[in-house]
Amino acid sequence: MFKLVLIRHGESIWNLENRFTGWTDVDLTPTGISQAIAAGRLLKAEGWDFDVCYTSVLKRAIHTLWYVLDEMDRTWLPVVKDYRLNERHYGALQGLNKADMARQYGDEQVLIWRRSYDTPPPALEPDDPRGQRHDRRYAHLAPQQIPLTECLKDTVARVVPYWESTLVPVIRSGRRVLIAAHGNSIRALIKHLDGISDADIVHLNIPNGIPLVYEFDDAMKPLRRYYLGDAAAAEAAAAAVASQGKA
Amino acid sequence: MFKLVLIRHGESIWNLENRFTGWTDVDLTPTGISQAIAAGRLLKAEGWDFDVCYTSVLKRAIHTLWYVLDEMDRTWLPVVKDYRLNERHYGALQGLNKADMARQYGDEQVLIWRRSYDTPPPALEPDDPRGQRHDRRYAHLAPQQIPLTECLKDTVARVVPYWESTLVPVIRSGRRVLIAAHGNSIRALIKHLDGISDADIVHLNIPNGIPLVYEFDDAMKPLRRYYLGDAAAAEAAAAAVASQGKA
Repeated sequence: MFKLVLIRHGESIWNLENRFTGWTDVDLTPTGISQAIAAGRLLKAEGWDFDVCYTSVLKRAIHTLWYVLDEMDRTWLPVVKDYRLNERHYGALQGLNKADMARQYGDEQVLIWRRSYDTPPPALEPDDPRGQRHDRRYAHLAPQQIPLTECLKDTVARVVPYWESTLVPVIRSGRRVLIAAHGNSIRALIKHLDGISDADIVHLNIPNGIPLVYEFDDAMKPLRRYYLGDAAAAEAAAAAVASQGKA
Repeated sequence: MFKLVLIRHGESIWNLENRFTGWTDVDLTPTGISQAIAAGRLLKAEGWDFDVCYTSVLKRAIHTLWYVLDEMDRTWLPVVKDYRLNERHYGALQGLNKADMARQYGDEQVLIWRRSYDTPPPALEPDDPRGQRHDRRYAHLAPQQIPLTECLKDTVARVVPYWESTLVPVIRSGRRVLIAAHGNSIRALIKHLDGISDADIVHLNIPNGIPLVYEFDDAMKPLRRYYLGDAAAAEAAAAAVASQGKA
């Protein structure tokens, strides 16, 4: 049997300000740092250990991983950073307040932007300073690989090939993998792994900073997933994420 | 022309306590953190940038690099951690106080242990808890690759092949490299690059947390090396390192 641990970054500054973040590189809040430290302590207390770690190229996920590794005294573990684990790109909504948008466009429209499987938010203009086409960290990509907006379907199309090509072989080799990523890159992976329908995935929310364990059989068929620690707290935190887009 | 930046970690807890550290995984002091932050700010202020970073598997170097990257807003850069950049192994001296040893064995003996090119300190027993043979981070190595003591010549024999096989091709490809390492792994590299004699290398000391620039011609012949920032401060800091082993 293989195991994998996923963790969504701790609370970010724009989580706190209730703004659409996407590929904007905002950092953790003090609460987010505390969540990451608590996650590391929990993993250590429960005897988890890892051989290799993966994260996005966004500092809220990278810093979350660093705090976890510090708490586990595993600073030395190899860490691979890849843009394919980035958050869903939020297009022209990046930087805007979720509740403001709900007041302006209605709760339903914001829910569609936040959670519709295949309706992306309005796209950024290619030269919008909120975009990433001039960000050196993506300079190795073709322009069309740097999104101007994404729906979850687009995120699935970026995350799942990375899962199949890079992560599955590593996990099957017996190495214990920790992934620090984002609400929607994790939702994209869960949708794929658990075969969740386009309609049902809207109701799945990922809390900040709580380790999520996947167990797989020898053929990498998912057996179960569960949050570490206090299950009720994880559920309440996920429900709070669900309510962020309401006026 | 190619450039490379090396940085010795900021002050560690055992630097402050004047103890032989070697492969013991002690962390930075608050002063060491400030040095690392200042180095990152200096690099950023002077317009330096990097494509890939290398460090050891010891947290005082890894954390130094993390602080530098945070200050440069380059958290997302790839970081490779390799034991071949580790500090010189200090054998049975690891954990002992340098001034105590000087009082007990004399300044001259301590200088031999600290700076002799080819006389290693007394070796650890293989099962000494201060050793690394049971440390998981070295589990991929054969036991004989995990030293029980090292003289600088041994460190050269570990650092230079890594330099030749891994770092030189990356630098020659045009990628800008930052290396966060240790006093003696950096001394080993400088000895090799600048052809310093076994006798003269004893007088070369590396200050904590000050970026050291190497310039190479197109054939990777070293042209010059210099510390960034205040040259007099770098010289004073190196002189302070030199005096650590005196009673």
